[in-house]
Amino acid sequence: MIPRLPRHMIEDLVNRALNEDLGGRGDITSLITIPINRNGHFVIVSRASGVLAGQQPVNACFDLVDRDIVATWCKSDGDTVKTGDVIALVNGPVSAILTAERSALNFLGRMSGIATLTRRYVTAVADTGVTITHTRKTTPGLRAVELQAVQAGGGAMHRYGLDDAILIKDNHVAVCGSVSAAVGRARSRVGHMTRVAVEVDRLDQLDEALSAGAESILLDNFSLEDLRAAVRLTAKRATLEASGGVTLETVRAIAETGVDVISVGALTHSSPNFDLGLDEGQASRSASR
Amino acid sequence: MIPRLPRHMIEDLVNRALNEDLGGRGDITSLITIPINRNGHFVIVSRASGVLAGQQPVNACFDLVDRDIVATWCKSDGDTVKTGDVIALVNGPVSAILTAERSALNFLGRMSGIATLTRRYVTAVADTGVTITHTRKTTPGLRAVELQAVQAGGGAMHRYGLDDAILIKDNHVAVCGSVSAAVGRARSRVGHMTRVAVEVDRLDQLDEALSAGAESILLDNFSLEDLRAAVRLTAKRATLEASGGVTLETVRAIAETGVDVISVGALTHSSPNFDLGLDEGQASRSASR
Amino acid sequence: MIPRLPRHMIEDLVNRALNEDLGGRGDITSLITIPINRNGHFVIVSRASGVLAGQQPVNACFDLVDRDIVATWCKSDGDTVKTGDVIALVNGPVSAILTAERSALNFLGRMSGIATLTRRYVTAVADTGVTITHTRKTTPGLRAVELQAVQAGGGAMHRYGLDDAILIKDNHVAVCGSVSAAVGRARSRVGHMTRVAVEVDRLDQLDEALSAGAESILLDNFSLEDLRAAVRLTAKRATLEASGGVTLETVRAIAETGVDVISVGALTHSSPNFDLGLDEGQASRSASR
Amino acid sequence: MIPRLPRHMIEDLVNRALNEDLGGRGDITSLITIPINRNGHFVIVSRASGVLAGQQPVNACFDLVDRDIVATWCKSDGDTVKTGDVIALVNGPVSAILTAERSALNFLGRMSGIATLTRRYVTAVADTGVTITHTRKTTPGLRAVELQAVQAGGGAMHRYGLDDAILIKDNHVAVCGSVSAAVGRARSRVGHMTRVAVEVDRLDQLDEALSAGAESILLDNFSLEDLRAAVRLTAKRATLEASGGVTLETVRAIAETGVDVISVGALTHSSPNFDLGLDEGQASRSASR
Amino acid sequence: MIPRLPRHMIEDLVNRALNEDLGGRGDITSLITIPINRNGHFVIVSRASGVLAGQQPVNACFDLVDRDIVATWCKSDGDTVKTGDVIALVNGPVSAILTAERSALNFLGRMSGIATLTRRYVTAVADTGVTITHTRKTTPGLRAVELQAVQAGGGAMHRYGLDDAILIKDNHVAVCGSVSAAVGRARSRVGHMTRVAVEVDRLDQLDEALSAGAESILLDNFSLEDLRAAVRLTAKRATLEASGGVTLETVRAIAETGVDVISVGALTHSSPNFDLGLDEGQASRSASR
Amino acid sequence: MIPRLPRHMIEDLVNRALNEDLGGRGDITSLITIPINRNGHFVIVSRASGVLAGQQPVNACFDLVDRDIVATWCKSDGDTVKTGDVIALVNGPVSAILTAERSALNFLGRMSGIATLTRRYVTAVADTGVTITHTRKTTPGLRAVELQAVQAGGGAMHRYGLDDAILIKDNHVAVCGSVSAAVGRARSRVGHMTRVAVEVDRLDQLDEALSAGAESILLDNFSLEDLRAAVRLTAKRATLEASGGVTLETVRAIAETGVDVISVGALTHSSPNFDLGLDEGQASRSASR
Repeated sequence: MIPRLPRHMIEDLVNRALNEDLGGRGDITSLITIPINRNGHFVIVSRASGVLAGQQPVNACFDLVDRDIVATWCKSDGDTVKTGDVIALVNGPVSAILTAERSALNFLGRMSGIATLTRRYVTAVADTGVTITHTRKTTPGLRAVELQAVQAGGGAMHRYGLDDAILIKDNHVAVCGSVSAAVGRARSRVGHMTRVAVEVDRLDQLDEALSAGAESILLDNFSLEDLRAAVRLTAKRATLEASGGVTLETVRAIAETGVDVISVGALTHSSPNFDLGLDEGQASRSASR
Repeated sequence: MIPRLPRHMIEDLVNRALNEDLGGRGDITSLITIPINRNGHFVIVSRASGVLAGQQPVNACFDLVDRDIVATWCKSDGDTVKTGDVIALVNGPVSAILTAERSALNFLGRMSGIATLTRRYVTAVADTGVTITHTRKTTPGLRAVELQAVQAGGGAMHRYGLDDAILIKDNHVAVCGSVSAAVGRARSRVGHMTRVAVEVDRLDQLDEALSAGAESILLDNFSLEDLRAAVRLTAKRATLEASGGVTLETVRAIAETGVDVISVGALTHSSPNFDLGLDEGQASRSASR
Repeated sequence: MIPRLPRHMIEDLVNRALNEDLGGRGDITSLITIPINRNGHFVIVSRASGVLAGQQPVNACFDLVDRDIVATWCKSDGDTVKTGDVIALVNGPVSAILTAERSALNFLGRMSGIATLTRRYVTAVADTGVTITHTRKTTPGLRAVELQAVQAGGGAMHRYGLDDAILIKDNHVAVCGSVSAAVGRARSRVGHMTRVAVEVDRLDQLDEALSAGAESILLDNFSLEDLRAAVRLTAKRATLEASGGVTLETVRAIAETGVDVISVGALTHSSPNFDLGLDEGQASRSASR
Repeated sequence: MIPRLPRHMIEDLVNRALNEDLGGRGDITSLITIPINRNGHFVIVSRASGVLAGQQPVNACFDLVDRDIVATWCKSDGDTVKTGDVIALVNGPVSAILTAERSALNFLGRMSGIATLTRRYVTAVADTGVTITHTRKTTPGLRAVELQAVQAGGGAMHRYGLDDAILIKDNHVAVCGSVSAAVGRARSRVGHMTRVAVEVDRLDQLDEALSAGAESILLDNFSLEDLRAAVRLTAKRATLEASGGVTLETVRAIAETGVDVISVGALTHSSPNFDLGLDEGQASRSASR
Repeated sequence: MIPRLPRHMIEDLVNRALNEDLGGRGDITSLITIPINRNGHFVIVSRASGVLAGQQPVNACFDLVDRDIVATWCKSDGDTVKTGDVIALVNGPVSAILTAERSALNFLGRMSGIATLTRRYVTAVADTGVTITHTRKTTPGLRAVELQAVQAGGGAMHRYGLDDAILIKDNHVAVCGSVSAAVGRARSRVGHMTRVAVEVDRLDQLDEALSAGAESILLDNFSLEDLRAAVRLTAKRATLEASGGVTLETVRAIAETGVDVISVGALTHSSPNFDLGLDEGQASRSASR
Repeated sequence: MIPRLPRHMIEDLVNRALNEDLGGRGDITSLITIPINRNGHFVIVSRASGVLAGQQPVNACFDLVDRDIVATWCKSDGDTVKTGDVIALVNGPVSAILTAERSALNFLGRMSGIATLTRRYVTAVADTGVTITHTRKTTPGLRAVELQAVQAGGGAMHRYGLDDAILIKDNHVAVCGSVSAAVGRARSRVGHMTRVAVEVDRLDQLDEALSAGAESILLDNFSLEDLRAAVRLTAKRATLEASGGVTLETVRAIAETGVDVISVGALTHSSPNFDLGLDEGQASRSASR
C-alpha cells in the first residue's frame, strides 16, 4: 500500500518549496532568456538504479507553476528504475518547466532515495517474514511524504507521531518507577483503539513488560544472542521490534533471530539522494496526468 | 558568518514539525505516564564527532512546546564537537522536554550532519584559496536552515534561489541560440545589482562566455585537465566555479586546478544524520538562553 | 488524563475565533465608550451545574487580545461546578477584557457543555466497568479541543481520525467481499503499531470478525439481547464496542450487557451549551496564570 | 437570502476539517481495503425531518479530497426534507468518497441542525411580523457557515461581529456613567454607516436610551409585561429586540408583545445535530455540480 | 477614536513585510558588517510636517525582528509633527534595528502620509460640521491599518467592506428596475443592525430614494448647485454623502452646501509618502514600550 | 521583461484582499439585490492616460470569487492606454462581478499608477542610456506586484530585499570604521554570486569605495556637480547610482551627468492611483483568459 496523500497537504508542501526557490521575482533567468509562449518537450531520466517515489509532489510542482504543463509518467511510485530509464515525459511551456525543475527533482530525488534504501533493507531480509519499518527520525515538516516513500520501497508503517500509539521509553519508565508500573498505567488510561508498546534495554526487563501486557516490545540495541533469547522468552505473546544502529550489513542476521519487525532510522535520516535529471526530449505520443 | 534567521521563519518551520509529531492529541505517552508538574534535568550529548548547527530551531522547539523549558548551550553553531561532549543542558518540565525531544534532535541531527560534511570539504581544500559552496539541491521547505548549516560548516553562499542571480544553463542557451546571445540578453535586461553567471559544458564555450561578459562561469563536469585549461584561459576575467559529482576524494585535486569556487550538491542532498541523544542529566549550575 | 494541547494549536484556533469577531476594526463599541487605560475586575461565573473544560483556549483569548489581562482560575478543567460558582477572576484593561469576552465564553460554554454531557454518561454507567467514548462526529476544525473536553468529562479516547487506526465499515466489507477478507487484508498490510477494528451490523458476522483476528469489534445498533449474545460469543477475545443511537436513558442497560466500550456521538454533536457569564467583580487578592 | 460564501473561506474551513481527520497518512482503512480505481454510487439520505443547510462545505469536502467526485443535489439549502429523502447523489471513486464522508456529514449535520431549529422558531412566530435572529454565541471559527445556516432556516442577520455595529452593554454604560452618556458618545463618534444599539435591563432605562438616539434597543430578560410596556413607550421610535433565555415554548408569547426582533442564542450554541447518512446508491441518471 | 488593532492582525501584516524584505537569508549586509552583540541608539526623525500614524506596526517590526529592541515614543498616533521632530527613540542591537528599519519606516511613512492628507481635508472643512470619510479604494491587504491612519488624521469610518452595510449602486438599481425597488428589497431583507444606503447620480432619483426609506444617500459627482438642492429636498430625512473627485481645492465648497459627509478616495489611494528617517542618536534616559 | 509571478503568490495576495472586503457575510448588497443566476457584460474602462499593470491579480480576483467570470483583455501589462480605452471585457454572473469589482480595480489602479509614473521617469531620461529603478520603499506586503508594475513601466530591478545583494550604508560604515573596511569585509565574506554596493554621501568617500572593490556605488543626495565629478573619477570602474529626492523635474539633469542608474523611491511610495472604472458593456464576441 502506497498512500495517496490529501491534495491540500501536498500543495501546501510544494508551495513552500516553490516560495523559497522563486522568492519575490520568480525565475529571472528563464524570464529573461525564454519567450513566454515557447513550448517544449522534456524527459525526467533516471541517473541511477533504485525505486521511484514522489509522483504526487512532482505533479503538484508542475501544476502549481503552470497548469499547462503536462507530465506523463512511464513509471509509478514503487517501481524499480535503472540508469537511463525515462521516468516521465514533461511537455508544456519551456519557461515554466525550467522554473519548476529543481523543486520537482528535489522531491523526487529525496523520496526515491528513501524508497531505494528501504527496498535494499526489505530485500536483505527477504523470506524471513520480518517487516522493515521507519522511525520518527524524519526531516522536519516532510514526514508525510517521507513515509509515503518508505512504503513505496516496501517498508511498513510504525506509529506516525507521538499521538497515535503509546511507546514507553526509559525516561517514562524512570518516572513511573518500573516497566510494569508504566505499562500498567498506560493500559488503564489509554483508549481501546490505541496500542501500547514499551522499549526495553535489557533482557531482564522483557518478562516484566510481557506480564504488564505490552502488546509490542522494542528491543533497543540488543545483541543477536539477546534478541534470540527474547524471541524464545516472548513466545509470540507480543510483537518484537529490534532497533538501534541497524545497517545493511547487520539487518539479515537480526532478521534471522526471529523478531517480527526491524526499525531503521537511516531510511529517512541518512538516505542519499537518488540522482535524476531533466533533459530535453522528444514530443510524447500521448499525454495524461 | 552564520546568519541568524528571522524568528518568524524559524517558528513557522518548528510549528510544522511539532504539528506533524503531536497530531491532535499531543504526546499521549508522556501525558499518561509523567505528572504534569515533574521537573527534570537533561543533557544533549554528541554521539559522533563533527560540527554543530541548529541552535535556533532547537531553542524554538523547546520554547514552542513549553516556555518553561530552559536550554543552556555549552557549544555554539559552528563549533566542533566530539563523541560524548555535552552540547546543551535542558531543564524544565519532564513531560514537555520529552515531547519536544524528537523534533529538536531531528533539526539538530540534520543540520549538524550538513555542517559536518561541509567542514570536511572545507578542510580538504585548506590553503588552496578555494571556496566550498552549496547548490539548490536542498530539502524542500528547509533551504534557509540547511544553508545556515552550510555556513556553520564554513561553506559560502551561492545564489539562494532562482530570483537573486542569473544562472544560464544549457536549456536557456538552446532557446537563445548561443552562449553569447543568452549572456548578452541577460546582461542587457537584468538590474545592476544582480550577477550574471553561465554554465558551460565544454571548454570551447568558455571564450564565448567570457566575451559576452559573464561574471561567473560554472564549469559543469569538466576534467581536471579542462579545468586547468579554463583557469589559464580565463585569466581572472571571471569567477570560475567547478561543479558536478564532486566527492571528498576528488575535491582537493579540483581545488588545485586553480578554480575559485567548488559547489557540492551532496552537502545538502546526501549528508548523513549527525548522531545525538537526550540523556538524563544533572542540575545545571546556571541557566540562560 | 486531560491532555494539554500544543500552544500553537490553541493559538491558531483562538486567532481564528478572534478574527471573525473583531473583523478589520475591532470592538468598536468598547473602543468608543471605554478609555484605553481603564482597568477593572471581572469574574467568570457559572450559571448552571456541570463540568468545566476550556481553560487553555480561554487563557489564549485573553492573552492574544492583550497580554496585560490576567486570568486566575478557581476551578480546573474536569472540576464540577454549580450555579453561581466563581470559575475565574479576570483582571486587566476593561476594554480588552470586554473585547475577548464573547470568544472566551464561546469556547468555555461549548467545551464545558461537552464535558458536562460526557460526565452524565460516565456517571450513568458507574461501576459497570464500561468506558464511554466519543465518535468522529465532531465540529469541523475543533476536534482537538472537543476531545479534550470529552476527557475532562471522564470519557476515553477512541481513534482521533482516519489515520491512526483501522476501522472497517460495511462499505469496506462490501468491496472486499466479506468481513474476513477485509479484516485479513487489513491485518496483513497495516503496521504493527496500529489496531484493527471492524464494524458489524448483525450477530452472525461476529464469528467471522473474531476468526479473522479483529482486535476490536463495533456492534452497530445491536439490540440488548444481541449485545448480550455478542459478549458471550466473544468471550474476551476482542474488545466490544456498542454504538448507535445511545442515549442517557439507554446507556445503563447497554453497559450492563457486558460490552467494554460505548461510543456516543451526541457527546460532541449535540451537547447543549453550558451557560456562563462574565460579571463585574472585586479585585482579586492574588493573580497568577 | 442565503449568502453564498467566498470560495476561499469555505475551502479554508474544509481543509482544516480534512486535516484533522486525515492526519499525515490519510484514510488508512480505505487505502488498504479499497482498490484506488473502484468507482461507486452513493446517496446522502436524511434520517430526520427538518431544513437543509451546508451545500457549499459539502461540495468542497468532496472536491478537495478528489476532483473526480460528483455530487448532484436533489435538495437545496433552505429546503425542507423529511426522513428517508435523498438529498444528494454522490458518484466517483469509492475510496475518496468514504474518505470525505465524515467531514462532509459533520458540516451538513451541524448546519442543517441549526437551520432546522431556526425554522422552528420562525414558524412559531408566524404572522406576528417578528424577525428571529441569532447572537454571537457561535462555534469559534464557524460563524460564517453557522449564520449561513440560520438564514437557510429563515432567520435574519444580527451584527456579524464586534466591528460592524455598536451595541452598548451594561459594562460600557457603567464606565460612561449613564445610558445617555454612552449612547451619545457612540453617536457622536461612530461613522454614518454604522448603527447604534444599546442593551437595557430595566424598563426605566428605555426612555433614556430613546432620548439619546439609540436606533435599536435590546431588552434583556424582560418580562412579557415589561416588553409590552416597552413597545408602547417606544412607539416605533426605535427597533426593539427581545433577548435572554428565549425558548420554543416562550417565543410566541414574546413575539405577541409587539417587539420587532427576537434573538435566540440557542440557534447556534445548542442546536442538536441533524441526522444524515451516506448509503450505497444507484447510478444517477445525470450529474452536475 | 483611533482603533487599537488586534495583535494577531498586526503581527501577520508585519511578518509578511519582513518576509519579503528578509527572504531566506536575512539582512546579509548587517550580518556581515555588524557584530551581533553591538548595541546602539537611534532616533526616528520627521523630515516633513504632518500627522503621525503607524505606531502599532512599527512596534511589531522591531519586536518581531528582535525582542531586545526598545522603542520609546515621543509622539503618539494622531499627533502633529514637524520637520526635525524626534518621533521615537530606538535602542538595542544595531544589526537588528537596521534589519527592521525599512519595514518599520515603510509602515510609518505610508500611514502618516494618509493621516496627514486626511488632516488637511478635515482642516479644510473646519466648522462646517461636515465629516470627512474614506472609501474602499484602499491598498489590497492593508485596509485595517490604512483606516486606522484615516482616523488618526481625524477622518470618520465609512463601511469597512462589502459585508457590514448595504450600499446600492447603479448596477444594482439596473437589475432591480428602480431605486425604490432596490432600496425596498434591501430594507425588507437586511437585518435590523445594518444600514441601507443608496448611490444616486441625478437629483431626480433623490426623492425616490427618500421615499423608499434609504437612511443614507450618496450623491455621486453632483454639482454644487445640485448638492444644495439635495440638502434642501432631503430636509434631514437621510444622511447625505457627497462623493466623486473631491480635492483639497473643492472640498470646502462642497462642505458648505450642507451635506453631512464627504468621502474622499484619495485619502488612501493617492496620499504621498510621509518622509521619515532613522538616524544615529543619543542614549535615551528612560525606555518603555 | 515583465515577470510573471507564481500563481500561489498572486492568489495569496488576492485572497487577503477579498477577505478584508468580503468579511464573514460577503457582498450583502449584491446578494440581496441581484438574482444569483443573472449574467451580464461589463468593461473595464480607462479614465486616465498612462501605462497598464495588474493583469495577474485582476484575473485572480475574478477567478477566486467565481470561476465562471471570464475576463478578456484588450490591453496588456506595459501597454499605454488613454482615457476611454476599453482595457478588458468582463462577462459572467453579475453578482460575482460586482463583488470582485473593487478588489480588482484597487490592484489595477495602484499598479497602473506605479507603471504610469515609472514610464514618465523612463521617458524623461530617454536616450541618455540611464536606467530608472526602484527602492525598497514599497507598500508592506505588496513588493512583488509593485515591482512587477515598475517593470511594466520600463523600470529596472534593483535588489529585491535585504538578502539578495550587499548594500553598505552609513550606519554599517560607522561600525566598521571606514568605507574600505566595510567593503573589504563584505567582499571577503559574501558568496561569489552576490554583488557588493556601497552608499557614499560625499565625493571624498568615492575613491575609497572604488579602491576597496565596490561594484556599485550609490551616490546619495549628490549635487549635479558632484555627480559629474563622480562619473569622471570612477571612469567606469563601478556602476554609479544616483539617489535621493529625485523628481520628474530633476531627473533629466541627473541623467545627463553620466551616472548609470537613478533610483526613485516615489515610484512606489508616492505614485497616485490610476483611475479606472467598471461599466456595463456589450456582449463580447469572443472570450478567452
